[in-house]
Amino acid sequence: MPALEIITIILFAVFAVYDYGKSHRVTGHSHELFQDVHVMIFIGFGFLMTFLKRYGFSSVGINLLLAAFGLQWGLLTQGIWHLDDGKIKVSIFKIINADFSTATVLISFGAVLGKTSPVQLLIMTILEITIFSINEHLVATVLEANDVGASMIIHAYGAYFGLAVARVLYRPGLRNGHENDGSVYHSDLFAMIGTVFLWMFWPSFNSAIADPGFTQLTAVINTYLSLAACVLSAYAISSLVEHKGKLDMVHIQNATLAGGVAVGTCADMNIGPFGAMLIGLVAGIISTLGFKYLTPILASNLGIQDTCGVHNLHGMPGILGGLAGIVAVALGKKEGGNAAMQAAALASSLGFALVGGAITGLIMKLPFWGQPPDQNCFDDSIYWEVPEEEEENEESLAHGDHSKNKAEV
Amino acid sequence: MPALEIITIILFAVFAVYDYGKSHRVTGHSHELFQDVHVMIFIGFGFLMTFLKRYGFSSVGINLLLAAFGLQWGLLTQGIWHLDDGKIKVSIFKIINADFSTATVLISFGAVLGKTSPVQLLIMTILEITIFSINEHLVATVLEANDVGASMIIHAYGAYFGLAVARVLYRPGLRNGHENDGSVYHSDLFAMIGTVFLWMFWPSFNSAIADPGFTQLTAVINTYLSLAACVLSAYAISSLVEHKGKLDMVHIQNATLAGGVAVGTCADMNIGPFGAMLIGLVAGIISTLGFKYLTPILASNLGIQDTCGVHNLHGMPGILGGLAGIVAVALGKKEGGNAAMQAAALASSLGFALVGGAITGLIMKLPFWGQPPDQNCFDDSIYWEVPEEEEENEESLAHGDHSKNKAEV
Amino acid sequence: MPALEIITIILFAVFAVYDYGKSHRVTGHSHELFQDVHVMIFIGFGFLMTFLKRYGFSSVGINLLLAAFGLQWGLLTQGIWHLDDGKIKVSIFKIINADFSTATVLISFGAVLGKTSPVQLLIMTILEITIFSINEHLVATVLEANDVGASMIIHAYGAYFGLAVARVLYRPGLRNGHENDGSVYHSDLFAMIGTVFLWMFWPSFNSAIADPGFTQLTAVINTYLSLAACVLSAYAISSLVEHKGKLDMVHIQNATLAGGVAVGTCADMNIGPFGAMLIGLVAGIISTLGFKYLTPILASNLGIQDTCGVHNLHGMPGILGGLAGIVAVALGKKEGGNAAMQAAALASSLGFALVGGAITGLIMKLPFWGQPPDQNCFDDSIYWEVPEEEEENEESLAHGDHSKNKAEV
Repeated sequence: MPALEIITIILFAVFAVYDYGKSHRVTGHSHELFQDVHVMIFIGFGFLMTFLKRYGFSSVGINLLLAAFGLQWGLLTQGIWHLDDGKIKVSIFKIINADFSTATVLISFGAVLGKTSPVQLLIMTILEITIFSINEHLVATVLEANDVGASMIIHAYGAYFGLAVARVLYRPGLRNGHENDGSVYHSDLFAMIGTVFLWMFWPSFNSAIADPGFTQLTAVINTYLSLAACVLSAYAISSLVEHKGKLDMVHIQNATLAGGVAVGTCADMNIGPFGAMLIGLVAGIISTLGFKYLTPILASNLGIQDTCGVHNLHGMPGILGGLAGIVAVALGKKEGGNAAMQAAALASSLGFALVGGAITGLIMKLPFWGQPPDQNCFDDSIYWEVPEEEEENEESLAHGDHSKNKAEV
Repeated sequence: MPALEIITIILFAVFAVYDYGKSHRVTGHSHELFQDVHVMIFIGFGFLMTFLKRYGFSSVGINLLLAAFGLQWGLLTQGIWHLDDGKIKVSIFKIINADFSTATVLISFGAVLGKTSPVQLLIMTILEITIFSINEHLVATVLEANDVGASMIIHAYGAYFGLAVARVLYRPGLRNGHENDGSVYHSDLFAMIGTVFLWMFWPSFNSAIADPGFTQLTAVINTYLSLAACVLSAYAISSLVEHKGKLDMVHIQNATLAGGVAVGTCADMNIGPFGAMLIGLVAGIISTLGFKYLTPILASNLGIQDTCGVHNLHGMPGILGGLAGIVAVALGKKEGGNAAMQAAALASSLGFALVGGAITGLIMKLPFWGQPPDQNCFDDSIYWEVPEEEEENEESLAHGDHSKNKAEV
Repeated sequence: MPALEIITIILFAVFAVYDYGKSHRVTGHSHELFQDVHVMIFIGFGFLMTFLKRYGFSSVGINLLLAAFGLQWGLLTQGIWHLDDGKIKVSIFKIINADFSTATVLISFGAVLGKTSPVQLLIMTILEITIFSINEHLVATVLEANDVGASMIIHAYGAYFGLAVARVLYRPGLRNGHENDGSVYHSDLFAMIGTVFLWMFWPSFNSAIADPGFTQLTAVINTYLSLAACVLSAYAISSLVEHKGKLDMVHIQNATLAGGVAVGTCADMNIGPFGAMLIGLVAGIISTLGFKYLTPILASNLGIQDTCGVHNLHGMPGILGGLAGIVAVALGKKEGGNAAMQAAALASSLGFALVGGAITGLIMKLPFWGQPPDQNCFDDSIYWEVPEEEEENEESLAHGDHSKNKAEV
């Protein structure tokens, strides 16, 4: 980790300068959109994964570690494609894109949550962001496809990359579940902090790199309405498929967000408010059904143990977003769009994800990265000093050796 | 719920288009104010109500459901008054107002929290927002009254609407309390997330639809100062009225916000920094005293069981705000203001609230909406799959059937 | 407390008016930066201190009280230096600075957390902000030193002020620790809410009063990169110094933020992206090592019991920031800068902190401010009505007298 950061700093010393040419973008809207996206990356993804009863430290803590490293790495790997006098010119636009690149890793993290070591995850971060930068360059610059909210290049890519890694790291020993692979009451509430912050700031995410003016307005409104419709369908389907019409927190924490994913590609297109709502409605349905019926099948039949169900939140809705983009462009909803290029962009994102994820998984599987044994999965105490459990429940008299006597010897 | 969303989408298909004429408002300040208000609606109200020990899923989850539906409904019912070529032109300004309309429902939700089913609450959402749109049109367009921060049309309206509903749904069986109608240590901390986000972003709420420039600056500063003064008086009174000078978390979670409510009508008026602080000071006092002395009387003598004490946070401070607005306008603090119209606006808001709430309550009382029996009040497990309780407290070995084995069969 | 607020309001009535001359600053970026800083003050500092197992109400609640009073007091004491026609003209810029002045108090609060009464802390607030205003005037106006992100005048000042107070209030009875001076699992997660919000919005903090344009862009990017690098070094050092390579939550909650502190003075200087990262890297290292090795020594040898380790998060990184500023100015990285004035500013900040803190500590030590006895330290129940503990763990049947039966007698 220290070596990694030192290499990164050296690369920054060689390549990175401030972008004085775009300074007008700092004041006002771009800075605000950056901060909103930042909240989604660090609070949104971080707390969304705290639903596990004994893995909250890792969820929010390793999320911070991966994102903090990933944004530096993303600045470099994305910048390399756009050198200007041999330099990467750092602007607000560039740091928004750096935050975006980390989102792919945090999505994949969800698929392998609880079953990988920090070192494995840092390796995944390096490889996934590097491959993302290649695919992103291909989609945006070569194919000139539209993906303003990144349904394809972030969500579908991140999900299938993570699922490919999960497949390679399949653990037969967890076939029958694990006692810590579940939530408690308060861990579900912590996760809702992540859910709601993701939900609220998604209009900023989908409009952050849109052209200012009409286009950006469209992206905000489409995302707002898609998410609102998605909440209704997620609640409806959850209560339809659950025992006695009850709601399942897993669905609410996740499927309510699928509308933001699925409307991403089309967000800045002239699909009309009701078009956005239809996309959100469908996304909420397939996401909830995926959690209920597909995730168990993936685990038992295909050996894909998807801890957070990223296939349902990012994978299928991401593909839905890509398909909606193809249709919308074919219907002329985006000036200058080309449906074949949209389809190529989707295929490229999925291809890079599956191949890249499989290769990355094989590298992560090498036996010297400290992968936890089955019985220590989903448990913070393998990587963290965790406070004594009983102190929560009784007026403890003795001081456990893990408690923090910071001010005293 | 699915039918409701499908009808809503059809209405959007017929009526809603993007507002290309106001696109300049998307970049910059309006979008930011929208996001701040969004945080208040979804995190603020959602977490504020998680103080109940076993009702956190419903608080934050049903809050999300009602707000997500309510903003769609609010866009329609408010838009109907301002059709342009037969269309509702969706802009940032319109979605801020849609968020506002949901706030009325979330306030009323606080009065009946724990005692109503999601279906009852969706019915309340439809009716309350519809009636809100009528009153809002009357106050803003017909009476041309000032209510920039909506002390009258949101806070007083939402509170008395909810109290009228609560009166109609009076439960004699809860006269002596309910074991789950209380907090635990961590649920009070979750609630503070809601409190503090509401407190922080209130300057954005009260200035979101103010005229840009001087007026908006005034609204920000008045709200900032009123809230700051209110915190001091809420703490002072709480410690004066409680046993041994201790503070009561209920007062801190709620009464500290009364200054934001009460300064709403006057927020953009030239009342001076100290005028704003006086309003905040008084609001903190009456709100805290209301929690301590009035709420028990309302419950025992008038049959109004106000779970969150919305009468103290939104009701009385809302009326105070309306009265302060009458005085301020009479004193010439707002160019073009008319004190009689301000008084009419307050009366109209209270009238629509009480009559609308009573009728809505009667409809909600019909026996086929799944209202929970007394013993299941304040308990998530009637509507949610809730994780096994003992898993929180011991190293449980067995997997309860509610735990989330998402990746395994 | 009531008297204090009434005096404050009278002072506002005499001195404060709206600043109509700067109203153009309200729309757009300044208002956004204000709200981001606001979140750091109220959520960031408030929740960061909730790590203690039984002191969460006080952490977030007293933080709100001190900040709400402090910003009023800061507006007055800072405004007194810039009277215009005998008036303090309140603008967005002024309320950002008022929020800043409270940060010093909240930092010092961390040093004495759990060991002081609210009245003692209000006295500290009055004195610390008054002295801060003098030092800030000296540094900014007389010395004309650069400190855009306030490494010296907020972080170093706040930390050493608090440590001086802590030294004066030394409690030999806590030499061997206290059973409540530690965390539990969920309290550490609440604290991470504070950490992550502080981490995310630090670019806004360090750029909030920078000159718009290039300078502000530089401040955002330097802070973003310094924080990212700091996370990596904090994690690396934490795992190097802890037993079996585990991570310590205390380090992650705090040392990951040291990069924001340390880059403060240089934030708007032309130090280059890699310069910012180097500062962050070093800050993460010294902060983590401080928590591990220095804090116990301060407590046992110097009688400084620093509950939150503010010396490691704000003290040493603040000095590092001041030194980096001297070097950067000496190297010509800031037009018109003067290294000697930078050094004088650092010395002034430390001098005012230590002398001011010692005097304040002596006043706080007077025996009539309700300082808690040793055995009641770190315990909310001395100042708050706290819900019955057992209600969290069992289906309690009886209603404790602390539970909130708000709607019933």
